[in-house]
Amino acid sequence: MRSIVTGGAGFIGSHLIDRLVARGDEVIVLDNLSSGKAEFLSHHDSQVKHVDVDITNFDAILPHFKGVDVVYHLAANPDIRLGTQVTDTDLKQGTIATYNVVESMRIHNVSTIMFASSSVVYGDNAPMPTPEDHGPCLPISLYGASKNAGESLVSSWVGTFGLQGYIFRFANIIGDRGTHGVIFDFIHKLKRNPNELEVLGDGLQEKSYMEVGDCVDAILHVMANQHEPLNLFNLGSHDTCSVRRIAEIVVEETGCLNAEIVYTGGSRGWAGDVPRAMLGIDKMLETGFNVKYNSEEAVRHTARALIEEIGLDN
Amino acid sequence: MRSIVTGGAGFIGSHLIDRLVARGDEVIVLDNLSSGKAEFLSHHDSQVKHVDVDITNFDAILPHFKGVDVVYHLAANPDIRLGTQVTDTDLKQGTIATYNVVESMRIHNVSTIMFASSSVVYGDNAPMPTPEDHGPCLPISLYGASKNAGESLVSSWVGTFGLQGYIFRFANIIGDRGTHGVIFDFIHKLKRNPNELEVLGDGLQEKSYMEVGDCVDAILHVMANQHEPLNLFNLGSHDTCSVRRIAEIVVEETGCLNAEIVYTGGSRGWAGDVPRAMLGIDKMLETGFNVKYNSEEAVRHTARALIEEIGLDN
Repeated sequence: MRSIVTGGAGFIGSHLIDRLVARGDEVIVLDNLSSGKAEFLSHHDSQVKHVDVDITNFDAILPHFKGVDVVYHLAANPDIRLGTQVTDTDLKQGTIATYNVVESMRIHNVSTIMFASSSVVYGDNAPMPTPEDHGPCLPISLYGASKNAGESLVSSWVGTFGLQGYIFRFANIIGDRGTHGVIFDFIHKLKRNPNELEVLGDGLQEKSYMEVGDCVDAILHVMANQHEPLNLFNLGSHDTCSVRRIAEIVVEETGCLNAEIVYTGGSRGWAGDVPRAMLGIDKMLETGFNVKYNSEEAVRHTARALIEEIGLDN
Repeated sequence: MRSIVTGGAGFIGSHLIDRLVARGDEVIVLDNLSSGKAEFLSHHDSQVKHVDVDITNFDAILPHFKGVDVVYHLAANPDIRLGTQVTDTDLKQGTIATYNVVESMRIHNVSTIMFASSSVVYGDNAPMPTPEDHGPCLPISLYGASKNAGESLVSSWVGTFGLQGYIFRFANIIGDRGTHGVIFDFIHKLKRNPNELEVLGDGLQEKSYMEVGDCVDAILHVMANQHEPLNLFNLGSHDTCSVRRIAEIVVEETGCLNAEIVYTGGSRGWAGDVPRAMLGIDKMLETGFNVKYNSEEAVRHTARALIEEIGLDN
């Protein structure tokens, strides 16, 4: 099996590649290392080929799709909050990049795509837990808009050109090799100042967290067992964890026990933040897959891993 | 009130402008006349200002948003079937153009957008009639993908930057000044050959049709009476009409009574065609608006109007 992983040098992509390599896939990584890291792939041999290319460049990525069986499309602007500063980041790195991917697949007759979508497509005020058939999906962040647009591009290439598609709406995926997100930010803040931890919002934001190993195992389990033309699944864990609790766990794990936790206030961490999110995972569970970690366990496991990676010494 | 209408020289846009002018709005039309026609606006005076500009060109449209109160964004690739030939038409003229519009609004502090979406965002196999809260929305046409992407751009600009948004998912809108679509096509076919009418598919495709006057009246009624930050409404009529019945009506109205109706076969008219579509309109009806025409009446009314506009003599 020859696979492409876009964003393969990134957090989730590199974990997925570990699994693909273990089962014998030949992997082509399309990643410009804008947020991914070459070291996340350095333990692999020639079974993994890294191409340093920007997937917003259609002509540059097209030739690499020849002879490929499956595309795992994970590349995207990794920081959901950036969208409020430069407003075309998600349009280019999300929507247009996804067009480039599905169109390259059409041209080279690649049959199957996995698309990494997100819980943020559900927008504000969705019921919790949110099932896959919730509607309407009206995201409030620019990142969410690009994920919804990407889903529609995949579904229309399935409906019009006969691709097979797997769309996964991820909860907050956390774990080792994390390069952004709340736990990563908290550790860096405590590294700079062990006496204070600033939390964006009131800390009552409450979301479900899934450990990255659980996430990539779920992806491959679903793809091995579900064979509709278009397959849509939420991927998440059984419960939620508040940002307040995450702050406490990170303070404990860093040993910065004197740190004062300071809240900036307001229900949202930033414009476009969805304060409460929990995905319904019944559909995933019905495929026979279950997660190893609940949200709080995933948070603690991740805090330990990232503290070791980042290091607390200045 | 100063309004922008993108695609204002087009079929629906020009009817909307008639209403806006009648109530005293000053209207700026952004339209490159790729499918719209200057003659659809020629009965207006200086109250309507036409700017010949391509809305895929951000720098060219931006200055026109200064001092504007409301934007009616109707411009799009008008022919849903084109997407199967050139695959980036809807991405550019739909998704990227909509980004250009909402971003221009943000920069110039324009408060309110009306976005013309479509029943095709619901994709295949939606329940009939389809309510606004149906999910997931996984369109099968490239046009549908761009409409779903446009909705998400609007909702994210509402959620992140505080715009007010009105999203209308249109049934098949038909009427005088129509420039494309099944009735338009049938009349042109009978004009070329009065003895045969080729119908794409098996003719059993069955959709709801809304007369364009009803459509623009509904838009303005909802906008005058609903004031949420984001307002989503299906616009349609109470019933459906089959393509087979449309063919019979066009044959009757053209007087080509000897025409043999020939079906190309298959349940879809083209790749990406949704064979059956009927929108739930309870939400629209609850605002106190009702339609004048049912689907078959709208079809007959349109056939008569377009026969007069197109003319049957060669």
